[in-house]
Amino acid sequence: MSFSYASSLYCPKCTASHPLNKPINRCTCGSPLLVQYSLKELKSRLNREDLKERPPTLWRYHELLPLQKEENIISLGEGMTPLLEMKKTQHELGISRLFMKDEGLAPTGSFKARGAAVGISRAKELGIKEIAMPTNGNAGASWSLYAAKASIKSHIVMPAGSPPITRREVTIAGSDLHLVDGLISDAGKIIARLAEKYGWFDVSTLKEPYRIEGKKTMGFEIAEQMKWSLPDVIVYPTGGGVGLIGIYKAFRELIELGWINKEDMPRLVAVQAEECAPIVKAFEEKKRVSTFWPDSKTAAFGINVPKAIGDFLVLEAIYRTNGMAISVSDERLLAEQRRIARQEGIFVCPEGAAAFAAVRELRNQGWIRPDHTVVCLNTGMGIKYSEIIEVEATLLQPDDT
Amino acid sequence: MSFSYASSLYCPKCTASHPLNKPINRCTCGSPLLVQYSLKELKSRLNREDLKERPPTLWRYHELLPLQKEENIISLGEGMTPLLEMKKTQHELGISRLFMKDEGLAPTGSFKARGAAVGISRAKELGIKEIAMPTNGNAGASWSLYAAKASIKSHIVMPAGSPPITRREVTIAGSDLHLVDGLISDAGKIIARLAEKYGWFDVSTLKEPYRIEGKKTMGFEIAEQMKWSLPDVIVYPTGGGVGLIGIYKAFRELIELGWINKEDMPRLVAVQAEECAPIVKAFEEKKRVSTFWPDSKTAAFGINVPKAIGDFLVLEAIYRTNGMAISVSDERLLAEQRRIARQEGIFVCPEGAAAFAAVRELRNQGWIRPDHTVVCLNTGMGIKYSEIIEVEATLLQPDDT
Repeated sequence: MSFSYASSLYCPKCTASHPLNKPINRCTCGSPLLVQYSLKELKSRLNREDLKERPPTLWRYHELLPLQKEENIISLGEGMTPLLEMKKTQHELGISRLFMKDEGLAPTGSFKARGAAVGISRAKELGIKEIAMPTNGNAGASWSLYAAKASIKSHIVMPAGSPPITRREVTIAGSDLHLVDGLISDAGKIIARLAEKYGWFDVSTLKEPYRIEGKKTMGFEIAEQMKWSLPDVIVYPTGGGVGLIGIYKAFRELIELGWINKEDMPRLVAVQAEECAPIVKAFEEKKRVSTFWPDSKTAAFGINVPKAIGDFLVLEAIYRTNGMAISVSDERLLAEQRRIARQEGIFVCPEGAAAFAAVRELRNQGWIRPDHTVVCLNTGMGIKYSEIIEVEATLLQPDDT
Repeated sequence: MSFSYASSLYCPKCTASHPLNKPINRCTCGSPLLVQYSLKELKSRLNREDLKERPPTLWRYHELLPLQKEENIISLGEGMTPLLEMKKTQHELGISRLFMKDEGLAPTGSFKARGAAVGISRAKELGIKEIAMPTNGNAGASWSLYAAKASIKSHIVMPAGSPPITRREVTIAGSDLHLVDGLISDAGKIIARLAEKYGWFDVSTLKEPYRIEGKKTMGFEIAEQMKWSLPDVIVYPTGGGVGLIGIYKAFRELIELGWINKEDMPRLVAVQAEECAPIVKAFEEKKRVSTFWPDSKTAAFGINVPKAIGDFLVLEAIYRTNGMAISVSDERLLAEQRRIARQEGIFVCPEGAAAFAAVRELRNQGWIRPDHTVVCLNTGMGIKYSEIIEVEATLLQPDDT
């Protein structure tokens, strides 16, 4: 039995096929590439019950990941984050069951670890020595640390307004860090030029095909943790949208394997911030692609992405699952963040809080029904952006009572 | 089969026994209390193989935990943190195998989640409505958030010099927070007075018997993750020392169950900072208890504990396992923190870095031998104290190349 059943790369736009055995960024037509697996073959060789005794990391799904050899795994223990039932919140909102998939319990404190683990492991397998990427913070932190472990040199460009902690993570990892007086879109343009000039491998979102494979394991885990009975709705804070595309890809693969039923495909919800909502705008206008959102801003820094390269794949996943795109104000998401901490004991990141604020709104609108089971992705720890929380305390002297 | 095999509380000093069915702080003689289990009975009913298919949280060891009813579990997904082989470092140091038990992958980003999960679950089970504790930061953050989930009110006193992030965690959890112009020993005295005055339950280190039961699961996990073949040496950054006491207790319980061999008991090493090393001083003087360390200070804030209430238990565990106590300078531990990030891809906390600096020193001294297998505890994420890292970056404009 093979370690991986990945067979080739395919283009979701022009349907061209590409081999797996060398570094590649995008299709010749410019589209992102996706990994194809020999699922028919795998179906006859692996049962979902075979997973039970495997270690609790995302590598438990190695047949459905692109890495060819086990020895090339670069792991910091990523995956199998908890799926927590939010008993007080589901009761308050009047929803049958509401779960948080808590990606704060990942190496580097965010879901970005999944993409970095698979992306860096593949980069190492393909002999890549230097990588470059733009980031709003968390992805750069994750990729820098995984790259350090793999002895791959990394070059990171980040908006100057990005969270200070993520810059410290990039620094301590020994990466080459640049701050740009602009947005992630500006950082992306600089990376494209520098990568071209110096021959660095560009690992920007969807400019290499493996990050999404790491992200899709969130879908596998939700399915396995729910004992292969999927939720009705999955709510995902959406910047680049790779996680949402990945979760959709995961479920399609599980359907082909016969591990879940086609009719059980959850409705996927993309959540954005009111002042950076290009996917929501495209969805409302029934478009297949989004347009650049000018002067975007939000406290949920990770979803401040004015134009996502994979927007057409995000929108396709929403349309095909009869899903939804919705935006929430910063005021609402910050209030939700506080409420979740006080009610459920979890200090979620603002992006995760946005997902819960959206659930509240969709429940009010009736789109989420009382009998629904809902899973929200909390994409990282609140402490990574904790400057927004004002400490409330009194000062005592040692002899005070 | 019972959910828990806890039978009573016993005093390790005067050997008195106390019942489990009501809230209790310490023995009438003033000593901390420990939980006793019916291990002979459990031995005939549970095999270590029975654990294999259980969920990857510390509750997989519920028979060996004090909680009486499953429904009282307050969980944020704690436990089964990764045990990572540090391939580059073990090669550099010339040690057969060196592992990091990475407690950064815990709710609230530190090992304190284990004690809080079990301590708060038991507090809820016993009907406690308000708790109070002193903290250097991480414990307060964990207990505040678990208490919020359990709808228990918490009162926290922290040194004013404690890490800002942990204060924000306590604030967002809705706890009653006080900062004291002093050390954790000063905070402890204030808590003792306030708890007495207002009838709050004092959950200070070893002033209630259940926190240590949560911490001991680190020992169970190390044993299970190493397939019940224990390392030669375990290195633990020691402030209050509850983790070390807990790990020792865990192994003694596993020996009684026949799951590990008595001869395989690892040598336990307590690591402290040079300017706060009361346990090391006592060890060097072959004493059974430590004395208060005046004017203590260290960048490894979590181990800035000038006098630990459980010092005699820490020293006993060291002596009985033919272990060691050693201190490292802040300069060394901070250099080690940087090296681990660049070599192994993990941004460890300064306390965890101290453990690795100690391994380096003990290897140089020959106390750790080339054929040894060593496990170091990284007790939390580096990002919780990341202010100490100076960002190294260049500033670009959007049109720069």
